Amino acid sequence: MAERTIDVLGIGNAIVDVISRSDDAFLQQHDLPKGGMTLIDADRAHQLYEAMGPGTESSGGSVANSMAGIASLGGRGAFIGKVRNDQLGGIFRHDIRAVGTRFETPSATEGKPTARCLVFVTPDAQRTMATFLGASTELGPEDLDFDLIKQAKVTYLEGYLWDAPEAKEAFVQAAKAAHDAGNRVALSLSDGFCVDRHRESFRDLLEGHVDILFANEDEITKLYEVDDFDTALQHVRGHCEIAALTRSAKGSMVLSGDEVHVVDAVPPKQVEDTTGAGDLYAAGFLFGFTQGYSLPDCGRIGAACASEVISHVGARPEIPLKTLIPEAVKA
Amino acid sequence: MAERTIDVLGIGNAIVDVISRSDDAFLQQHDLPKGGMTLIDADRAHQLYEAMGPGTESSGGSVANSMAGIASLGGRGAFIGKVRNDQLGGIFRHDIRAVGTRFETPSATEGKPTARCLVFVTPDAQRTMATFLGASTELGPEDLDFDLIKQAKVTYLEGYLWDAPEAKEAFVQAAKAAHDAGNRVALSLSDGFCVDRHRESFRDLLEGHVDILFANEDEITKLYEVDDFDTALQHVRGHCEIAALTRSAKGSMVLSGDEVHVVDAVPPKQVEDTTGAGDLYAAGFLFGFTQGYSLPDCGRIGAACASEVISHVGARPEIPLKTLIPEAVKA
Repeated sequence: MAERTIDVLGIGNAIVDVISRSDDAFLQQHDLPKGGMTLIDADRAHQLYEAMGPGTESSGGSVANSMAGIASLGGRGAFIGKVRNDQLGGIFRHDIRAVGTRFETPSATEGKPTARCLVFVTPDAQRTMATFLGASTELGPEDLDFDLIKQAKVTYLEGYLWDAPEAKEAFVQAAKAAHDAGNRVALSLSDGFCVDRHRESFRDLLEGHVDILFANEDEITKLYEVDDFDTALQHVRGHCEIAALTRSAKGSMVLSGDEVHVVDAVPPKQVEDTTGAGDLYAAGFLFGFTQGYSLPDCGRIGAACASEVISHVGARPEIPLKTLIPEAVKA
Repeated sequence: MAERTIDVLGIGNAIVDVISRSDDAFLQQHDLPKGGMTLIDADRAHQLYEAMGPGTESSGGSVANSMAGIASLGGRGAFIGKVRNDQLGGIFRHDIRAVGTRFETPSATEGKPTARCLVFVTPDAQRTMATFLGASTELGPEDLDFDLIKQAKVTYLEGYLWDAPEAKEAFVQAAKAAHDAGNRVALSLSDGFCVDRHRESFRDLLEGHVDILFANEDEITKLYEVDDFDTALQHVRGHCEIAALTRSAKGSMVLSGDEVHVVDAVPPKQVEDTTGAGDLYAAGFLFGFTQGYSLPDCGRIGAACASEVISHVGARPEIPLKTLIPEAVKA
């Protein structure tokens, strides 16, 4: 891979999370499928927030969380995403820059406010999300920084952005520019419901533009409309250069051509909140990949990062993740 | 005490905390006295926030934290304080109402934004604060709800508000109205630097208007300009009906007339962040007082609440504090 000034450029939703503790009854009462992400409009966001308990705000967004992880691992990251010029937008911008990620996408000066995700953490440490995408959906091809894309070893795309029509076009343009520059393109499928909404176009994107795929068991079986993980596995092979398929406590599988690697999960000290597990797995994997680690080591670094983030409430790391690398790759 | 519909009415700063992990070098570099609260203007708030690491936002404010504690104990609380009609103001209003505290003070529609407190948590779990008071300083006598004051067994005043001239006048009017209705007035001295700024007027307030005083060792020695706690103790006696003096791990002393009670601290599971220890002690004490517990039991409930809040990051309780009462008062 040619010399590049950026390891990973993430393109994703720019969201502030509002995290509160909740219970299953609340989820049922408000028709929120447990463990999933429901898109909500401004009115429903207002109603749900009124009903929600006291919250804690912190910057989120799936790929943005991964970028925080890459910075914490010592990688060089950049992010493209859209906030409004409001207080929550200022918080998002501060937090991602404060960890050392480049973030220069101009704020929207009119239109919807900065996106927020209401996160309900149940006593079993699962998180159920309701997202008001707000200004995030304004991201379009005009926000792409093609110099950044050329400079990034990997351009990493967030599946959730597929819900925003302008962003789809931006993704395809970004992927083409990355490949033209000899770089790689990664995609996270983000969420099973998201896959259900966009199955065909995700498959097209995967065939035409994606080198590295991240998906969990639910997402990959939904993508190929099959019942079990093993059947999905057979479908994946040959459809992208590298696939990293995560299965929570069962670990992950890393596939590439004829290579198949089984990577164990790293048992966390405790499980407080599974928010960000997939995001941080991807962070570890992509960091490893851009540093030239073997594919199984990429998966092991990902597993170590995921283990850290589920051991506390919140989707961004609380310790310098680079301290986890030696233990992760010594196997 | 006559029948009242409110146990405690708090009047204080309406602040959103921005909490991040930091180290001693950062505090020195930015001239922030460790463990204290520095008032900053909008420019300095901007500069410090730029230099600060990624943060987590949550509603704060000393007396507002106490009100969250009183709600968590099962008490009936109300709050008076000033936010701007901006996103942070919306967060503050949501969070205090979500725990069941009445909060009806209208938002300012112009002027400074909602107050924020930059909280730097060092590895020794101490917190150092830099506060931009913003819209909080707009609180004045016109914001007092005299019906609420009449209905509240205790009106609880935040020493920090003494930094806002209009609020001083509001305090005196609120205290008079509370006494006219046969109710009690409590005051927290809030912070040693705050006491240094307002020593004389705090003493006047204490003599003329306060029945229940909360202070820690630093604050009470500064109030009387003495070197040690025991000397301060002698000064306090006779200057207000009840004084609860806190000494961190050394526990607290509760004084009333000739009564002197020594209350042990409750060792926490771990110490993560001492933010809110004094606020939650006051919450437990005032809850106990309004429910007719003995003074030492009031102190013990306070100690149990303080112990909970320092065991995690953040200044508001994470478990229902009422579950702590039976253990606290069985001694």
